[in-house]
Amino acid sequence: MKLANRTKKTSNSGLDEIFAASGPGVISFAGGYPDQQLFPKQELEKAFSSSFQSSNSNLLQYNSSLGYLPLRDKLAQRLQDDGIVVNADSIMLTQGAQQGIDLAARLLLDKGDGIVVEAPTYLGALAAFDVYEPTYYEVSMDNDGMNIEALRKVLMSHQVKMIYTVPDFQNPTGTVMSLEKRKALIKLANDYDVVILEDGPYRNLRYKGESLPPIKHFDTQGRVIFLGSFSKILAPGLRLGWLTAGPELFSGLVALKGGSDVESSNLTMASVNVYLEENDLDEHIATVRSTYKRRKDVMIESLQHFLPSGVSYTNPDGGFFLWLTMPAGFDSTEFLKNNLIPNKVSFVPSANLMPSKKLKNAARLSFSNVSEEDIRSGIQTMSQLLSAKLISMKGIKKHVKQ
Amino acid sequence: MKLANRTKKTSNSGLDEIFAASGPGVISFAGGYPDQQLFPKQELEKAFSSSFQSSNSNLLQYNSSLGYLPLRDKLAQRLQDDGIVVNADSIMLTQGAQQGIDLAARLLLDKGDGIVVEAPTYLGALAAFDVYEPTYYEVSMDNDGMNIEALRKVLMSHQVKMIYTVPDFQNPTGTVMSLEKRKALIKLANDYDVVILEDGPYRNLRYKGESLPPIKHFDTQGRVIFLGSFSKILAPGLRLGWLTAGPELFSGLVALKGGSDVESSNLTMASVNVYLEENDLDEHIATVRSTYKRRKDVMIESLQHFLPSGVSYTNPDGGFFLWLTMPAGFDSTEFLKNNLIPNKVSFVPSANLMPSKKLKNAARLSFSNVSEEDIRSGIQTMSQLLSAKLISMKGIKKHVKQ
Repeated sequence: MKLANRTKKTSNSGLDEIFAASGPGVISFAGGYPDQQLFPKQELEKAFSSSFQSSNSNLLQYNSSLGYLPLRDKLAQRLQDDGIVVNADSIMLTQGAQQGIDLAARLLLDKGDGIVVEAPTYLGALAAFDVYEPTYYEVSMDNDGMNIEALRKVLMSHQVKMIYTVPDFQNPTGTVMSLEKRKALIKLANDYDVVILEDGPYRNLRYKGESLPPIKHFDTQGRVIFLGSFSKILAPGLRLGWLTAGPELFSGLVALKGGSDVESSNLTMASVNVYLEENDLDEHIATVRSTYKRRKDVMIESLQHFLPSGVSYTNPDGGFFLWLTMPAGFDSTEFLKNNLIPNKVSFVPSANLMPSKKLKNAARLSFSNVSEEDIRSGIQTMSQLLSAKLISMKGIKKHVKQ
Repeated sequence: MKLANRTKKTSNSGLDEIFAASGPGVISFAGGYPDQQLFPKQELEKAFSSSFQSSNSNLLQYNSSLGYLPLRDKLAQRLQDDGIVVNADSIMLTQGAQQGIDLAARLLLDKGDGIVVEAPTYLGALAAFDVYEPTYYEVSMDNDGMNIEALRKVLMSHQVKMIYTVPDFQNPTGTVMSLEKRKALIKLANDYDVVILEDGPYRNLRYKGESLPPIKHFDTQGRVIFLGSFSKILAPGLRLGWLTAGPELFSGLVALKGGSDVESSNLTMASVNVYLEENDLDEHIATVRSTYKRRKDVMIESLQHFLPSGVSYTNPDGGFFLWLTMPAGFDSTEFLKNNLIPNKVSFVPSANLMPSKKLKNAARLSFSNVSEEDIRSGIQTMSQLLSAKLISMKGIKKHVKQ
């Protein structure tokens, strides 16, 4: 049995053992999980119960690829409040934002087509893109988002169909793309006729400062596909996200959803709609934010306190992640396997987070689903192991020099 | 913005208007919907409520691409009872069987690869396959399933990666593949190293006679991917199906599910698991079956009574569909648009149900979600329109002959 060529791509490879190592007793900074203690379980139970009790006779029936209309109406209002001009007819519900990534790639990418990704980027996006066997172009990340000059050079010299970006609290660096870069990005996309896939799962999770408009806000040509998700602000176990795009892209995405899984769960969509009617989602998000903010602060304090010199980190204004950079020559995959995991700590090594696997000396740390106590203790352990490792590296270097 | 080549395929084209025409006042034999009156709404409400009340703290959290283990355990038992040797570790939960079709195609099909489909076949499968731009080989249907000699000829002369079949109460003809053909099919697949995608959504909906073992039962080489679904026996609004396959295929399918939508809804999987603990699914299926059987009988009686001569139909032992064949030269798409829809009746014309769109003179009739009264009245209307059409066709022929 010969499998399709696409199955040879292995962006995901090696991560299974990392997540497998995130069992009991392990302090895992690896997963991008929200904290399940924060899920509004009672309110969601009530919402599901209400929707079962409702007169909606179609509750458990097929609906449409677009999804449950009252929920699309509410999402349209939320997106409008966020600066995206949209109505329910151009919103589709998806199985989390992940399905939106898959559908966008499916819509646009023939084998070999060019796609720009941030380097580093979201591992799950690479897993989705890999299936369509694109040509990857990596654009490095600055403190204020993608390096626009590097992007310009790629677009000038290569045929690119799509640019994938997480502009708000980027996965994995935590970086926010500046207003100037958002405008520059859309201008470049217009100039070079490229689609932007804007992935916004962390957009509502800002802990500090003012929100910037989504890139989609500046889109006058319908070339931005915007993805949102309830996974990080409500609960991932619902598997519910949404997308919106210009008319040409949107109708293609809707047609592809049909062949992919027909539609999303009508029961789930109707129940989340009831949740939004009966509760103030923004109030819920505010409480969630305060917990994550505290954890982020604890992680930053712990890093300040324990990290050896020569290791730097980002200090994000929101989201779930920060980015740790070790000195050149450091191999974070090897460090994870031989040092961290045996001492029951884990993170995601940088090599997995870019198609080229070039960057070896960095790692993603997630603080979202770790207690403050475990953050302190895990960062202390990691820092001690880092110190020892860096000292032994210096020793080797000296030895080599002699 | 240039879309991917795959988006030019349009197996789905023209069907939107048909389903749009299935609004209020229309007697629709087109949709393959189960009857929502039969959904165990109260029991499902109780099951969701129980799972919210349970101590399962992961209920709303991410789980794994495989899906909720206790439910996979129960499905393993059900599959074993049905003649498939399997355990929970080789079962994955999917977004309905539709996602299983998509993942199987994704796993196996490079552009141009050969795939055998029954002619006619399930429209949604074509929509899933189209994405991977395969080369289609159509094998005609006999009264006892795929024409095995035709299949043999295809396999002898073409490189084929996968055979897609709905052996039980086939969509759209209602046909059951005979025991002999099941054995012959697996032998051919072994001889020519081809994967079989066995789609079994109607398997439990037998109204008459004895069940035959699934093709997967005869699979000694792990080359059958078997798909099941709760959509027709519980409720499609759950979007829950499952698949099992030999180890090599299965591990590939699991990896692809991750990039596709991460996993299925943990809440839904856990709640359906509770439903299965608190209820006897087979008892529920028995009541569902009796309603669908009555409707099928009413449709057959109505066809016997009203249909003009020259039109034949299948009389299925289960499932949702039967197959209507008009005389050669008849165009069922044209008849649907110009005669049926203006008179508020609809069906699915045969041309949409095969990649070549060759077969013009047949149609799929679904009885599953139409009341007995509407079945009688709709079949009467359709028959009268058919009679008039056939007479006018004869008139034209005569006229041409003169």
